[in-house]
Formats: sequence, structure tokens, C-alpha cells
Amino acid sequence: MDYPDAIKLLIEQFMRYPGVGRKTAERYALHTISNFEDQDYLDFMDALNRIKTEIGPCEVCGHLTDRQKCEVCTSKTRDRSKILVVEESKDVIVIEKTRTYHGLYHVLGGVISPSNGIGPEELRIKDLLERLKDEEHEELILATNFSDEGETTSLYLQRLLKDTDLLVTRIAYGMPAGGNISYADEITLNKALEGRKKL
Amino acid sequence: MDYPDAIKLLIEQFMRYPGVGRKTAERYALHTISNFEDQDYLDFMDALNRIKTEIGPCEVCGHLTDRQKCEVCTSKTRDRSKILVVEESKDVIVIEKTRTYHGLYHVLGGVISPSNGIGPEELRIKDLLERLKDEEHEELILATNFSDEGETTSLYLQRLLKDTDLLVTRIAYGMPAGGNISYADEITLNKALEGRKKL
Repeated sequence: MDYPDAIKLLIEQFMRYPGVGRKTAERYALHTISNFEDQDYLDFMDALNRIKTEIGPCEVCGHLTDRQKCEVCTSKTRDRSKILVVEESKDVIVIEKTRTYHGLYHVLGGVISPSNGIGPEELRIKDLLERLKDEEHEELILATNFSDEGETTSLYLQRLLKDTDLLVTRIAYGMPAGGNISYADEITLNKALEGRKKL
Repeated sequence: MDYPDAIKLLIEQFMRYPGVGRKTAERYALHTISNFEDQDYLDFMDALNRIKTEIGPCEVCGHLTDRQKCEVCTSKTRDRSKILVVEESKDVIVIEKTRTYHGLYHVLGGVISPSNGIGPEELRIKDLLERLKDEEHEELILATNFSDEGETTSLYLQRLLKDTDLLVTRIAYGMPAGGNISYADEITLNKALEGRKKL
């Protein structure tokens, strides 16, 4: 005897998520059955349906939004001379939380990753070049992750733009806040030394 | 700037699941947006809706089913002299996978846990006593977990039934398959010694 079909179906749905194996999916499905009232099912279905119908990338920067253009792109108060390039929408949210950056964003939608079949044309790079034709933008800040793929993508963009007037910068490598030097890896330490500043 | 409302709603839905914090819920929500086609949303909503409308406890044993009585309870080939008592429906599935038990089940729906406000009356114990009035049942096998609460529940049932003709048994404590004695905890080792068998 196995679970009834409806339960198997829900387990399969949860197994589609990153890091969710059969055991965890089973736990989620059974938690649903044990804890959800009718209204909870309706709320979850409604949340999924709203994502399906309302959410998409901003037609300018690619950040997820429920409008055609996102809040940042349509803001009158942001510094339009700067565009900060990130891999994913969630990077925008994290940077916004620091409240120290007031420029614009561009969400690539991933990184160049030949082994996963993702080349530059799969990313929102063409849109970026299109945006950069506008002279109001003066600086492009590359904030892809410090992974091999993030570095590759950053390097690709840097080369692509080397003959333009645009100032292309990369966010700093170094020790994280609270970082313990004796636990730091070699690459981080090397980069922290290379990037040292006169006090 | 924060996520649009629809995304926040979906993140909240995922945060209802055990072990899912804000970061993980965010990852699940963004995974949904990046990977789901329209049909995938419909499939997920359909799975939730089917659980909502189709699934409930078997009216005899409490195991989750899409019928009034579950497959085991309505089977003509199961050994009706035995009832194995478990905490949750998923325990039934695990035991069924071993293909060594051919009796009936009773799902308590939890364990006695005063600190969580769960007493015997919150569990499917009254239904169990009702079932046991039927003389076809001869043995009750207690298979609650070997946690404090599982043991308490097992002890409670044992006492409740001590004046009946029913054979009440408890599944064996001992070393698990592949268990390494040098890594075993004291309680397990004690129980394994107590339960030793002549070869």
C-alpha cells in the first residue's frame, strides 16, 4: 500500500524545489494535510495564482515586479548615473535592505555557465547594452557573486564594455564583517591584502 | 523596496512548513517564479485542491485515504487478528514498504504530550478501544516512536488494556542494522543487552 494519488501528487510538487528530497517533500505534504484548514488551502492556491498572473520581470531592469516597470526604474529620486548589475532579483532585495545604494539595477537572470548550457545570450545582457546607449548612465557596478561563474560573467561584461566611456567597477573582495583571519580561506586573504588601503 | 505583495504572500505560505525559515521560503518562492510555466502553477494548485477535497482519515484506523475506509481496513487478505498502533500515517507507509507485516493498523494521530496540550482524548484512542471490542483482534502491537512521548503513549495504552484478554506487545528496542557499537548511545546499548537472545 502506498499513499493515495492526491498525496503522491503533492509530494511530487514539493520535490520540484531545490534541496527538497522525497523525505522532506513527504513531511511537507503530511504537514499540509495535518495543519491546513479549508481557508489555508485557498490562501496557498491564491498565492500561487497571483504569482502566475501578476509577477514578471521589469521590462527595463529585469527585477521581479507586479508592474511593467519596477519601483526603482520608475523612481524620480534614484541616481540614474549608476547601474548595479546582479545575478538574481533577490540580490536587489538584499542590497536595497542596506539602504546605502541609491542608483539603478540590472538583473542578469543568472550567470554564464557553459556546463549548464547558459551562454551570454541566455542572460539579460542585450537589454543591458541597449540601456547603456542612454548617456545618463555613467557607471556600471558589477555585483555578480564571487564564484567562478560570477567572476566569469563579470569579466565577460568588463571586456564587452572596455571600449566605451562607461566607468566599469567591481564591488570589493575582502574579509567579511566579523571575519576571523585565522579561519579565512587563501583567496579571500589574498584579495584582502591586494585591496588594502592606506589609513 | 521590498518584494511585490504576491511574492511576499507566497514566501509566507512556504514559511508555514516545518524547518522552513525566511531564507528557504524565499528560495522556494523565487524558484517557483523562475521555473514554473503556467501549467506547473495549475498542477500545484490542483494537487492542493485534491488534498483539500479528497483526503481524510480512514473512519476505522485513521490512516490517510481518499476513501471512507482505507485499503488495509477493507482488504480481504490481511490478518485481522493483529492491530499495529503507530503515531502517524507515514509510519504505516514505512512499515508497508517492509512487506513483512500483514495485519491491520491504527493511527493515533500523534502522541501524548502534556507540554503541547495533547492528552489521550486528542488522540484516536477512543476509536481504538471501540475497535478492540471486536473479538477478531487478538494482538495489539505498540509501534510508537522510542521518544519520551512515544514511550509514555505506549505505556498509557499498555495500562489501559492490562485487564483485557488482548496480547499487548511492543516492537523491539536494540541496535539498528549496520549499527556501530562504539557509536551507540547508552540507552540503546542497555536495551540491546536487556533484549539479548540465546543463539
